[in-house]
Amino acid sequence: MLNEAPDLNLLFHALADPWRRAMLERLSRGSAPVSELARPLPISLPAAMQHLGVLEAAGLVHSEKLGRVRTCAIQAKALGRAERWISARRVEWEQRLDRLGDYLRTLEAEGENDGSRD
Amino acid sequence: MLNEAPDLNLLFHALADPWRRAMLERLSRGSAPVSELARPLPISLPAAMQHLGVLEAAGLVHSEKLGRVRTCAIQAKALGRAERWISARRVEWEQRLDRLGDYLRTLEAEGENDGSRD
Repeated sequence: MLNEAPDLNLLFHALADPWRRAMLERLSRGSAPVSELARPLPISLPAAMQHLGVLEAAGLVHSEKLGRVRTCAIQAKALGRAERWISARRVEWEQRLDRLGDYLRTLEAEGENDGSRD
Repeated sequence: MLNEAPDLNLLFHALADPWRRAMLERLSRGSAPVSELARPLPISLPAAMQHLGVLEAAGLVHSEKLGRVRTCAIQAKALGRAERWISARRVEWEQRLDRLGDYLRTLEAEGENDGSRD
């Protein structure tokens, strides 16, 4: 878990911005040039380039320049890493709730057995 | 998606810090008082309280004061919201790859049919 920590800091920081999430939403439907990512957003192209830099540093996007066009692609592996961290916490919590439920049912059953002996 | 945006900003921002994630890891194993969350971390109790404030603002933790002890519990609903956003992007991307695979197989099959006609 500790080895993943710097990655996870960058990953969740990258996801904490609405324009960066909008770029990822667009890229999840297919690779696109930077200009197409920036166009629907109320920000300048240089600002979009900065956001792209944050997404690339987190490993969420890979971009490549072919001629004069820089094309971006989403990196599903990094998305998966962030998803797994959250999912592991949720599952651990739910399993704890399940065990608590089992324990309460055991107590209830013991109570009923005690009652039948009276 | 837009209605969820402020929540998601707070959620992912809260997850971007290693001490806050450590607190959530502890809480996924069961509710705990603030002092127990802070003890294993190399930060002061006031700093831990500030991190707790960020987790509460994001809806990831709920705390309640009983007498002199403030007890914290993880909120699985908020974890689920962050998880769903990431998972939706990943699934959308994977489905796109599947469709692309189908298309390439169709082209391949058409190529083979053309070949057999020669």
